[in-house]
Amino acid sequence: MFDYTPYAGLPETADEAKKQCVLANRILANEHVLDGYGHVSVRNPETGNTFFQARVVAPEFVTYDDMLEVDLQANIVTKTDFRAYGERVIHAAVLKARQDVFAVFHGHPHEVVAFSTTGMPFRSLGQFCGMFWNPLPVFDAYRSGSGMLLSTPEDGAELARALGDAYGIVMRGHGFTMTGNSVQQMVMNSIFLRDNTKMQLMLLPAPSAEIRYLSEEEGRGTEKTQYSDISLGRCWKYWVARAKKAMPDLGDF
Amino acid sequence: MFDYTPYAGLPETADEAKKQCVLANRILANEHVLDGYGHVSVRNPETGNTFFQARVVAPEFVTYDDMLEVDLQANIVTKTDFRAYGERVIHAAVLKARQDVFAVFHGHPHEVVAFSTTGMPFRSLGQFCGMFWNPLPVFDAYRSGSGMLLSTPEDGAELARALGDAYGIVMRGHGFTMTGNSVQQMVMNSIFLRDNTKMQLMLLPAPSAEIRYLSEEEGRGTEKTQYSDISLGRCWKYWVARAKKAMPDLGDF
Amino acid sequence: MFDYTPYAGLPETADEAKKQCVLANRILANEHVLDGYGHVSVRNPETGNTFFQARVVAPEFVTYDDMLEVDLQANIVTKTDFRAYGERVIHAAVLKARQDVFAVFHGHPHEVVAFSTTGMPFRSLGQFCGMFWNPLPVFDAYRSGSGMLLSTPEDGAELARALGDAYGIVMRGHGFTMTGNSVQQMVMNSIFLRDNTKMQLMLLPAPSAEIRYLSEEEGRGTEKTQYSDISLGRCWKYWVARAKKAMPDLGDF
Amino acid sequence: MFDYTPYAGLPETADEAKKQCVLANRILANEHVLDGYGHVSVRNPETGNTFFQARVVAPEFVTYDDMLEVDLQANIVTKTDFRAYGERVIHAAVLKARQDVFAVFHGHPHEVVAFSTTGMPFRSLGQFCGMFWNPLPVFDAYRSGSGMLLSTPEDGAELARALGDAYGIVMRGHGFTMTGNSVQQMVMNSIFLRDNTKMQLMLLPAPSAEIRYLSEEEGRGTEKTQYSDISLGRCWKYWVARAKKAMPDLGDF
Repeated sequence: MFDYTPYAGLPETADEAKKQCVLANRILANEHVLDGYGHVSVRNPETGNTFFQARVVAPEFVTYDDMLEVDLQANIVTKTDFRAYGERVIHAAVLKARQDVFAVFHGHPHEVVAFSTTGMPFRSLGQFCGMFWNPLPVFDAYRSGSGMLLSTPEDGAELARALGDAYGIVMRGHGFTMTGNSVQQMVMNSIFLRDNTKMQLMLLPAPSAEIRYLSEEEGRGTEKTQYSDISLGRCWKYWVARAKKAMPDLGDF
Repeated sequence: MFDYTPYAGLPETADEAKKQCVLANRILANEHVLDGYGHVSVRNPETGNTFFQARVVAPEFVTYDDMLEVDLQANIVTKTDFRAYGERVIHAAVLKARQDVFAVFHGHPHEVVAFSTTGMPFRSLGQFCGMFWNPLPVFDAYRSGSGMLLSTPEDGAELARALGDAYGIVMRGHGFTMTGNSVQQMVMNSIFLRDNTKMQLMLLPAPSAEIRYLSEEEGRGTEKTQYSDISLGRCWKYWVARAKKAMPDLGDF
Repeated sequence: MFDYTPYAGLPETADEAKKQCVLANRILANEHVLDGYGHVSVRNPETGNTFFQARVVAPEFVTYDDMLEVDLQANIVTKTDFRAYGERVIHAAVLKARQDVFAVFHGHPHEVVAFSTTGMPFRSLGQFCGMFWNPLPVFDAYRSGSGMLLSTPEDGAELARALGDAYGIVMRGHGFTMTGNSVQQMVMNSIFLRDNTKMQLMLLPAPSAEIRYLSEEEGRGTEKTQYSDISLGRCWKYWVARAKKAMPDLGDF
Repeated sequence: MFDYTPYAGLPETADEAKKQCVLANRILANEHVLDGYGHVSVRNPETGNTFFQARVVAPEFVTYDDMLEVDLQANIVTKTDFRAYGERVIHAAVLKARQDVFAVFHGHPHEVVAFSTTGMPFRSLGQFCGMFWNPLPVFDAYRSGSGMLLSTPEDGAELARALGDAYGIVMRGHGFTMTGNSVQQMVMNSIFLRDNTKMQLMLLPAPSAEIRYLSEEEGRGTEKTQYSDISLGRCWKYWVARAKKAMPDLGDF
């Protein structure tokens, strides 16, 4: 049931990238980071300047046949009548601005939405989520009349500018957008930001001056160990095995 | 497993309305908004002045054969020995007072019961539940000796007056009653009010003056996007697919 | 799947009492009120002065064949090598002191253990758990060296005295003991005390002076509606149906 | 489904120790104390100075064939290409320093990671987790550049010194390491420390001066009752039965 082969690095074919995109959707739904809304994208390794993303469907039920190819201006490349996510502009803009990014998440776990309204920084409390030692930027420049959604290429570009070179960006009263230099890292970052935020909420009633967040030295150290092939591979295979157990239709996907 | 067809709008037949009523019961139990108590109603589109509701049964186990037809004076139209919910008077009164309402929810999720006793307003913290930017009215006029239940047509009318033209009304120490101009909107409103309240509870220990609720401008914007056909349809199909997975007896209902 | 027959009142045979005892164990485990520890008892309606209880086994896995008969001095009546719960003295003493009681619960849900250490009263926040409008007594007279367990008939008698004529009694740092004039009422009281305590914990950070607990008038009213045959029957059948779905080995028990 | 045989005491063969190690991994994953990370170890009763532990794999999916044998200097004894956990040095050092210890846990439940950053003591709130009446030591001497991981024999020895003769030790911003004089006691201690910490978090907003923790007298009493054969055996068999129900691949392991 558990796959013991070492972490294989980035996919080299479009087909493999699409399969990882399906798994990422399923994993993030199974771990309760995505619900009816939200989406992920994976860069096409064969082109470099297009990406894969599901058509409009809840992540828990995404299949291989739902995959659309989109370019970095957010145009749909696939010839299809399928409906694409309006917020694909976020993914296009981030993948355009950040050549180091291979995969992008956008979603709305309740813990992050709630904490984002407090004005308090998102900071690492633990080794496993030490990559967030440097508080994440927070976006709060919604266009008037937008319903707090980002739907134009300009909206996407504005978010990408605010993201800068951070791993991710919190969106006040909305959710967060997260990156990874692989699908595995994007999934780990997304799950662990949710988990770290859950821990920050647990501690809201504690005397705030006493709380020991990770120091920069500690945080930088954990990035090395958490993003090692052995750690990324182990987590990914754990999440895949759990998703396959909960979602028998995945088969030996 | 996921149904990709567009949102179909209101049902045109009594049969289809009854089926949506069964699904709404199952979805709201599956998403933990209804437990052993609580009920939903759906207007009969063929008459306009009667509605469907289950006989006395826990929502998680409602079937098509449990459906009763009730009129807007809360009289049971169906010839049957089935026992009807005493609080059907709430549904009758709201559907009578509000011609714009097609479906009504009444239930008691713990989060809402608890928060209703604090005297604090129910207000939107996030984009996805932005329809509650305008704090919901709170009902607290229980008849002496009623056991805090509404069981007469007069009780129902009093609640409907307090509801006014809001989406829903919180009932202090009891739960809430919610409306929708479709079954899909009633289900979304009910789930998202529970979720928003859960987030408000998470933030009870945070410095309250710092919390950023949605502004009126933001809230009005989210109503447009959240209630769009694409958004309503996607969520409904997500909740239906989850309910069918958890409740195999639904089959291809 | 749902049993629509009306509430049948107290069992008249020992066999039926034993079956209700098995179901109560399974329900309270399935609803997360009992874990590896804890136990329930049901008076034998054929004798009046003996009761049924499982041998030492986790409640989630209790079967009909585990039933022991015990008298009100806590002697084991059944000829058997089975090991009995040490704390059966609680059940014996309560069933001896309270002729109005037909069934007893003793368990340790985390919410109640935690809240019991705060010195704050256990009071009703909602209609559905309105039977606790009158704060429950709290027991804190553990014998030195007892490990906070009640294991002698004298320990049991002391608890029964502290219980008085209340529905139940909280045990500081330990859990609670609950009664019912039927198995159905005992199960409802046990689940709803846990739920009410969960809500009290949710509100710990709220301004305590503002919280509106149920008044005596409201609480007394809810006792009538919650303990009606229609309400007790509906809840019991809901919990039975859920337990049977989660525990297929129960069959059509 | 439930195993009624009395608690059998320590395993006498390497084979039985390995089987208990598999079950401990599965139980601690099933009860949400271990996630993708974390590991347990069981002393080899045939040698006394080696122990069993899984190769690199998520605990939820550990099988008998994953077992490695490791010595107390953390050298891998088994001839294999399998990859071993880097933090096996913790297990080696504790089993070397503490001849009374038969099994060791190391993991990172969110509740413990969060609470460990507050500087507040970990103390017993309830009878069932009364073994923690004496606040656990807290480790906070991470080597610079270590990423807060313990990966050398010296790191392990330092932790073992800080542990002293306590049941376990909390690691600030990381998790905890727990011991037992049997696999059953190690599992109980690990689950109940997580549970006690969950209760401490529930009470963070309560007036702290009013909270009644267990006294030394109460705590020492609960150690006797909780660690009795009857109590350890009942809990272990409960957790085994639950794991087997949730993980059918365990069969009649």
